[in-house]
Amino acid sequence: MKSLTEKTPCSGEEAEAVTAALPENDDAAKTAAGMTDREPARQTAVTEEDLAYMREALRLAQEAAEADEAPVGACIVQNGRLIAAARNRRESDKCATHHAEILAIEEACRTLGGWRLPGCTLYVTLEPCPMCGGAIVNARIPRVVFGAYDEKAGVFGSATDFNALTFNHKPAVTGGVLAEESRAILSAYFKGKRKN
Amino acid sequence: MKSLTEKTPCSGEEAEAVTAALPENDDAAKTAAGMTDREPARQTAVTEEDLAYMREALRLAQEAAEADEAPVGACIVQNGRLIAAARNRRESDKCATHHAEILAIEEACRTLGGWRLPGCTLYVTLEPCPMCGGAIVNARIPRVVFGAYDEKAGVFGSATDFNALTFNHKPAVTGGVLAEESRAILSAYFKGKRKN
Repeated sequence: MKSLTEKTPCSGEEAEAVTAALPENDDAAKTAAGMTDREPARQTAVTEEDLAYMREALRLAQEAAEADEAPVGACIVQNGRLIAAARNRRESDKCATHHAEILAIEEACRTLGGWRLPGCTLYVTLEPCPMCGGAIVNARIPRVVFGAYDEKAGVFGSATDFNALTFNHKPAVTGGVLAEESRAILSAYFKGKRKN
Repeated sequence: MKSLTEKTPCSGEEAEAVTAALPENDDAAKTAAGMTDREPARQTAVTEEDLAYMREALRLAQEAAEADEAPVGACIVQNGRLIAAARNRRESDKCATHHAEILAIEEACRTLGGWRLPGCTLYVTLEPCPMCGGAIVNARIPRVVFGAYDEKAGVFGSATDFNALTFNHKPAVTGGVLAEESRAILSAYFKGKRKN
């Protein structure tokens, strides 16, 4: 899972939902995608395909919740082909690195036969943590689409912005896509946890 | 390997070598450890044990170089016991995540049977990149000792400082330990690469 504080899994103020397909016009698409003033240059338009793959990531997050894991799901798409899909497995695998994005990136490397992932988009229900953001940089993933913002640990605009640093790869990033749904799954999970 | 730019694997200006065991006095130890003004609070004293494990990490880095990998080595020690050791395997495994630190952290999780690594020190020959720094945070590793600074990608004082952000764990960090040796292995490797 993301290195969330369990009390505040993500920030409501910073995330806005995208609940509909977006028009072709870039500015309108950006506005609808819930862009904040924080990252005007990095946001890309949200397509119908993006929404479909974010729904797949949400399905994987739900699978994680059912396995009693912090619900985060991720998938990777290259040229319209789904090449990797994973959910958070930190607790089941007893492994600190087994976040959804890391497992998806490793699967994509196996599928493509190399450590670079050209032409790929990574979809994930929560803004990547430093480890996963770093793996995205290391795998040279060209584009990242994420759901809920993570105020304390998110590295594409929230806790920090990796794209504003000196790292040798800067993915295009679209945040806040199906954010309400992504946040709802997390909130329900942590609410259940606090009761137990 | 670290997400190094291959032209400038690490910054000579920012790293200083520790070539001898250090005295018990904290201030003297810190000075000898090559502390910069950048991170006065986070540095811890360097012990004889630290130097021994850094030499083990250097041995692993050399192993990486011999396998034609960017030479970075890492090991993890808990209560005086070596519980994990790895070298960069990005090229051999064709996997973006297979830096020395990630592989060592995964081995340590298997050894200890959980995703938290209490009481552990991670030794690595190069300042961790964002992915590995994030994995250190996620595994709650209490202490990190590294060799050469990495100006472009290092996250404990160089490109950024994870300990100055809002992440939910902040390891104690000692940088610049056996930095000359760590940098020399990297320089020799990339010099050889440029010739080929």
